[in-house]
Amino acid sequence: MLKGIDPLLSPDLLKLLCEMGHGDEIVLADANFTAGSLGRGKTVLRLPGIGMRQACAAVLSVFPLDDFVAQPVAYMQVGDTPAGYRSELQREVISDMGASGSAGSEQCEALERFAFYDRVGRAYAIVQTGELQAWANFVLKKGVIAEELRK
Amino acid sequence: MLKGIDPLLSPDLLKLLCEMGHGDEIVLADANFTAGSLGRGKTVLRLPGIGMRQACAAVLSVFPLDDFVAQPVAYMQVGDTPAGYRSELQREVISDMGASGSAGSEQCEALERFAFYDRVGRAYAIVQTGELQAWANFVLKKGVIAEELRK
Repeated sequence: MLKGIDPLLSPDLLKLLCEMGHGDEIVLADANFTAGSLGRGKTVLRLPGIGMRQACAAVLSVFPLDDFVAQPVAYMQVGDTPAGYRSELQREVISDMGASGSAGSEQCEALERFAFYDRVGRAYAIVQTGELQAWANFVLKKGVIAEELRK
Repeated sequence: MLKGIDPLLSPDLLKLLCEMGHGDEIVLADANFTAGSLGRGKTVLRLPGIGMRQACAAVLSVFPLDDFVAQPVAYMQVGDTPAGYRSELQREVISDMGASGSAGSEQCEALERFAFYDRVGRAYAIVQTGELQAWANFVLKKGVIAEELRK
């Protein structure tokens, strides 16, 4: 553990988040997600017993979201639901992101299940949480930390 | 890079500091230090071009010092100097530690060169900086991050 850093950010997870660069994406997945198979060839870390809200908050405490794109957050659309539908957990996670200043609701994009899998294929790594709610899968795109451009 | 974390803390260094436990020691060494040989079998990370003051400040921004011991910081005593002598750089680093609230001057112990090497032998890892001042070698003992004991 380290001062000022969420203890859920293990040494391996902290290293992973830190080594990602601008535009790299990390998947935060629920406990049913096909992390092992879709993550073949990638780093897959596990947070057993940890819910998505807690995992997301820990990651976003250090992880800057990309402000070069309109929607740096994507989530897996619940099957057979109308456009705009979000599960209670998705609403909670997105509301947490708003409250922490990470991302507003309009910066979060719904992706149909198989489109989500395609996105996972291009992701840098997967963190599988212990979240037992179904459809609780998110992709976060990393932004930059930069000094102000000199005038 | 990550939000709120000194950019000198590379993914590997952040992982290393995070995985250390209570009482583990890290060596911050100058550019002439025998890091490769004394560090055989340990992790040795490098910060070329980075001075000791900057490296120490970055590490101590996240690394808690041990408050179970009187002197969680040790430094290599300059050869052939009287007890209590500290080089200008040692005084600067120790003054920085005081200013940041990490450790007071009395919490920093002088170790003769070969006693320092013995201590390095028991250390968890070595970070070799680019510090060109001689005798700029420190050992930091890790403390705990804990919630208050319940009354």
